Amino acid sequence: MHRDPDCIFCKIIAGEIPSKQVYQDELVTAFYDINPVAPVHVLIVPNKHIPSVNHVQPEDETMLGHMFSVARQVAEQLGVAERGYRLILNTGEHAGQVVFHVHMHLLGGRPLGRMVCR
Amino acid sequence: MHRDPDCIFCKIIAGEIPSKQVYQDELVTAFYDINPVAPVHVLIVPNKHIPSVNHVQPEDETMLGHMFSVARQVAEQLGVAERGYRLILNTGEHAGQVVFHVHMHLLGGRPLGRMVCR
Repeated sequence: MHRDPDCIFCKIIAGEIPSKQVYQDELVTAFYDINPVAPVHVLIVPNKHIPSVNHVQPEDETMLGHMFSVARQVAEQLGVAERGYRLILNTGEHAGQVVFHVHMHLLGGRPLGRMVCR
Repeated sequence: MHRDPDCIFCKIIAGEIPSKQVYQDELVTAFYDINPVAPVHVLIVPNKHIPSVNHVQPEDETMLGHMFSVARQVAEQLGVAERGYRLILNTGEHAGQVVFHVHMHLLGGRPLGRMVCR
């Protein structure tokens, strides 16, 4: 599995930096965001280092599609599946991407309002 | 390909309801949202009818992962890849899901601000 030695998410996936892990298998890891913006705020990441959606290759599709199965499972596990949740992936400056390892935010636990604030 | 005869997105995919289409292949269709909330606002949908992420099955993963390749391609095609864009999937009431056919919003064209508004 390709990793970047300077990537904080690669280190979290490898267990070298502690996280509150929610799920892990051979393709995907899920853990709580340290700066939650909703009552439930989990990050779902591919174990392979991919800097952003702009770097996705056709061979990554199965792994990335698996993130949706994990999202479904995590939403059930954390009790937000029925009321609902939002999945967000930010790419680049306009979206405010901070960590350059693909990550899917799973937000839930209350009404989330509009998709864009202003 | 499974479709729901009452689903507006199934009808758009089949060309029975007009849309401003951006991309289509055997797995995925992309078209402009009729109520844009950003300068670029495209919907990327699987051609197969899946009501929400809560209904994703393991056999759907390849198709859903392909949506990321299409998102990358659409972002390049519409000139927002470099500055950035946000991908959003809403599931259920708390996220404000309106059409019950899985769809990925691609938003870009200006700074998108915070992920959650309140």
